[in-house]
Amino acid sequence: MPLCVALVHSPVVNKHGKVVTSSITNFDIHDIARSCRTFGVDRYFIVTPSEPQQWLARRIVRHWGEGWGATYNPRRKDALSLIEVVSDLPEAVSRAEALLGQRPWLVGTSARPRPESLSTQDLRTRLETGDEAFCLVFGTGWGIHGDLMDSLDFSLEPIRGVGDYNHLSVRAAVAIILDRLRGTPTA
Amino acid sequence: MPLCVALVHSPVVNKHGKVVTSSITNFDIHDIARSCRTFGVDRYFIVTPSEPQQWLARRIVRHWGEGWGATYNPRRKDALSLIEVVSDLPEAVSRAEALLGQRPWLVGTSARPRPESLSTQDLRTRLETGDEAFCLVFGTGWGIHGDLMDSLDFSLEPIRGVGDYNHLSVRAAVAIILDRLRGTPTA
Repeated sequence: MPLCVALVHSPVVNKHGKVVTSSITNFDIHDIARSCRTFGVDRYFIVTPSEPQQWLARRIVRHWGEGWGATYNPRRKDALSLIEVVSDLPEAVSRAEALLGQRPWLVGTSARPRPESLSTQDLRTRLETGDEAFCLVFGTGWGIHGDLMDSLDFSLEPIRGVGDYNHLSVRAAVAIILDRLRGTPTA
Repeated sequence: MPLCVALVHSPVVNKHGKVVTSSITNFDIHDIARSCRTFGVDRYFIVTPSEPQQWLARRIVRHWGEGWGATYNPRRKDALSLIEVVSDLPEAVSRAEALLGQRPWLVGTSARPRPESLSTQDLRTRLETGDEAFCLVFGTGWGIHGDLMDSLDFSLEPIRGVGDYNHLSVRAAVAIILDRLRGTPTA
């Protein structure tokens, strides 16, 4: 049942395929936290090894979580309270384990098809019926680095639309995958 | 089959329920254009009566559509080419009619349930099997003003997640609704 989201800023690739650490984007913090809150995600990990970037992310969360910001928009505080800033994925896993009482499986996401990927329907069923915990891993920039992707427990099928264009923003990808896993449209 | 998206900046309501014209947000331009491109939307209308805001939106689209911007990231150009900036919904309808050869039904979206709303599954079926055209209407700020909402042809069921929290970003809402209407997850 438990579900976490991790947004990875390193190691990711840039448009030239080079390994980089991407910067934190303010809209990633807010949009993804609001999607996580809507779909009952237990924790939203922002993953970056950069200490100044960690400071920035925590500063933004604190701004909306305390004092004036919390009063101005309590729904924003509510969503951002899901955020935890960590240095790398092992730290996210260990924090998730402390929170959930079990180690989550890491499920990588990518715009490119990969062999033996899990379908969103299969993952939805396992979330609804099993007692396993999962953490969805999303990459910023042009996606999670291949070596990191290979090290994860599962990969999720890419989002397909109409045709070949597959350049959704990470914010849109998180929203769609959470809706596929947890949304309740009228039949 | 044809499907358009309109993002309305006026009349919308602010957090106090007051009617306002909201500002254009750069991420609304990019994220929503990329989602529209992924899910085969025919036109993405950015609706604002403010001439300086229209100028700004067109300037951003042109930046990525010509010269350096188009070379730097052709996929961005590709998505932003779906954008048309208009003053109000009647102008969007008339432009859509010119493009599609038929007047689209206007389908309002809201985070609040409304009587007799269309389910996303019903709309998906009508899009797949019928010869009608539809234009999804999304509000910025805290949503489309009630009078405008009442004037539209249909309203779409709200996105429900887990629990009562329904404060998705408009970017996330557009992504989820387009995926529900046009996405092709593995069964």
